[in-house]
Amino acid sequence: MSTVSLLAPKTFQSLPPIAGVALAAGNCGIRYKDRPDLLLASFPPRTALAGMFTRSTTAGPPVEWCRACLPGGAIRGLVVNAGNANAFTGDGGRRVVRQTAERAATLLGCAAEEVFISSTGVIGEPPPADRIVSALPELFRTLEEDAWDEAARAIMTTDTYPKLATRETEIEGRRIRLNGIAKGSGMLMPNMATMLVYLATDAAVEAGALQDMLSAAVRKSFNCITVDGDTSTSDTILLAATATAGNRPIADPRDPRAQGFRAALDALCLDLSHQVVRDGEGASKFVRITVAGAVSDASASNVAFSIANSPLVKTAIAGCDPNWGRIVMAAGKSFEPIDQAATEIRIGGRLIASAGSRIDDYDEEPVAQHLRGSEIDVDVRIGRGPGMATVWTCDLTHAYIDINASYRS
Amino acid sequence: MSTVSLLAPKTFQSLPPIAGVALAAGNCGIRYKDRPDLLLASFPPRTALAGMFTRSTTAGPPVEWCRACLPGGAIRGLVVNAGNANAFTGDGGRRVVRQTAERAATLLGCAAEEVFISSTGVIGEPPPADRIVSALPELFRTLEEDAWDEAARAIMTTDTYPKLATRETEIEGRRIRLNGIAKGSGMLMPNMATMLVYLATDAAVEAGALQDMLSAAVRKSFNCITVDGDTSTSDTILLAATATAGNRPIADPRDPRAQGFRAALDALCLDLSHQVVRDGEGASKFVRITVAGAVSDASASNVAFSIANSPLVKTAIAGCDPNWGRIVMAAGKSFEPIDQAATEIRIGGRLIASAGSRIDDYDEEPVAQHLRGSEIDVDVRIGRGPGMATVWTCDLTHAYIDINASYRS
Repeated sequence: MSTVSLLAPKTFQSLPPIAGVALAAGNCGIRYKDRPDLLLASFPPRTALAGMFTRSTTAGPPVEWCRACLPGGAIRGLVVNAGNANAFTGDGGRRVVRQTAERAATLLGCAAEEVFISSTGVIGEPPPADRIVSALPELFRTLEEDAWDEAARAIMTTDTYPKLATRETEIEGRRIRLNGIAKGSGMLMPNMATMLVYLATDAAVEAGALQDMLSAAVRKSFNCITVDGDTSTSDTILLAATATAGNRPIADPRDPRAQGFRAALDALCLDLSHQVVRDGEGASKFVRITVAGAVSDASASNVAFSIANSPLVKTAIAGCDPNWGRIVMAAGKSFEPIDQAATEIRIGGRLIASAGSRIDDYDEEPVAQHLRGSEIDVDVRIGRGPGMATVWTCDLTHAYIDINASYRS
Repeated sequence: MSTVSLLAPKTFQSLPPIAGVALAAGNCGIRYKDRPDLLLASFPPRTALAGMFTRSTTAGPPVEWCRACLPGGAIRGLVVNAGNANAFTGDGGRRVVRQTAERAATLLGCAAEEVFISSTGVIGEPPPADRIVSALPELFRTLEEDAWDEAARAIMTTDTYPKLATRETEIEGRRIRLNGIAKGSGMLMPNMATMLVYLATDAAVEAGALQDMLSAAVRKSFNCITVDGDTSTSDTILLAATATAGNRPIADPRDPRAQGFRAALDALCLDLSHQVVRDGEGASKFVRITVAGAVSDASASNVAFSIANSPLVKTAIAGCDPNWGRIVMAAGKSFEPIDQAATEIRIGGRLIASAGSRIDDYDEEPVAQHLRGSEIDVDVRIGRGPGMATVWTCDLTHAYIDINASYRS
């Protein structure tokens, strides 16, 4: 697993500091011995918070905790460990979360409910509270603003590269920064959030407006990606706004002053979500699937995910095989309305089928050539309706099975 | 693909004749050169018919044709080809179906609407009408009652063995036979039917009662299996009752005389459905998943399929890795209600987790040992409700990717 994905970004973004946000990464030996596996982050007083979590009905204690604390709309601390998901761990898992939050709160001088907790890794194993709690004081001593890269590395599990992104915009002529880190890279079909994503900005935005803008950005990014259709117990996305940039606070998401900020947030989320897909377990191809002509956007999204999660579509793409009939199958198994007579299928922009069957002068070679590349475009029209959706995914390769038949043992 | 699945039945069932049902298999060179790829079957006058078809919204012309003819409740002929699914083939595909039915009807001396058609294989390629139609007269000349094995072989695609089953029962003291053949073995999560299944009996059962009994049997067998979660465009199951056994016709599915027949039909369908799973593409393990304690049977079924189709669960089983946390994840991603505090997980009958977390004295070794076998049992309780469901599936291995990254090209 030490090889970096072939689809990794050519250059990694270097993240500038966000005033007031300090980070520290360390190793507490939960699962990984030779790399950081624990992250502590601190935020200045009056930092507003927005967040979204997995829709899984087996969500773990850290997600329960964050969900309960989110209505406070404020964050002062964040603790994330990799290697143990603290999910399906019952009361014991809940105690670990509380102990962790309380210890961090004492160090940071805040309430436990202002400390947010995430855990990622193996599900069902009792988490080692002692290791986490006893590592916090040392991390607290080493907090610094310039540690985004280390932070991104500390939350990785089977990820082959850290995921970082940054954007700059302006509010009232003041420079506003947005930073983000994320982890993938299997058990990944986010639903209302993705695996683990932490965003911070120095803009002053009130929690309600922040939540609204985060939801809109996630809907178009993290909620449009899938690696294997397996939704995690731990999906969490948090966006902290420190207000250190000095703009007058934004209270209404439709405030015209926030326009650039919203665009930057959308771009940041899209950037990170694509980085996650590009590090999908075993991925050798990055695949965009756009479905148009559906009865609604929701219907288009169901069809697009049905195609994106189909093992037969994913293996055909892995094998560079223009077996486009599997796209037809995967669209149909969504059970969404499809008007075959108005259906069109394109791969790499080339029209393959229209009006419900293969075009007469179909030439497979240019399609096969496109599939031999690493950036694959699939466009499907399923009728004459207004609904449209795009999702991003990767192929299904031997490496996925290598990783997951032996990830734990 | 020439190796037979390790999970294949140790002995193949030899099917006795069903009086009046004659079969012939031949090669018409659609895709396979050295094995039969075309089946013709004939049934005596007044043979009653029941059937079920894929719920896919991209079903192909043969399914459209069968669906339109089924209300007639009668069958005289059946034509099945392997190698081309005749799906997403538009008006051209519909013409091929009509030509095939008309040619067979002329040979058999019946109406075209009494000839049922199925096609399996690659989706989207125009089907070769000439090859099929011109091969029918020779098949007609060689029809015989003792050709069930050849028939089962003629409908195979990536199947590594033919699937046959037979049962015997009594009505009014008369011996009643039920025969069945099926094909798998990828693109397989049947929905209201399975890939291709043809059943015949010499019992006299009217079409309405036959349909009722078939639906009940399918609900507990073919609708409870999955290989890869990919529902085909071509799923078809037909049950023909020739009435040649001489019993007084059964018109009511609740007729007490039909009790043994129903049990035999249920057993036949379960047998064939398990044979299909055992030949799932790349399968190395046969997996039973039972979910209990759900709010309803439908909810239990959703959870069971969510577990059965999870790539992470399937790869863990392939790797003999007792990573039971993935079962928790897969249950949760169904979004069905789960009472974690009342949840229990067993693998191979061994209790692993109860009351929402791992048991204290958990010993992984016996679980790992069970997973090293080829018959895997998973039992999950998700609450205290009355809902229960069992599904059968297989693991996800490198061989699945080998088969499907290169099936077509």
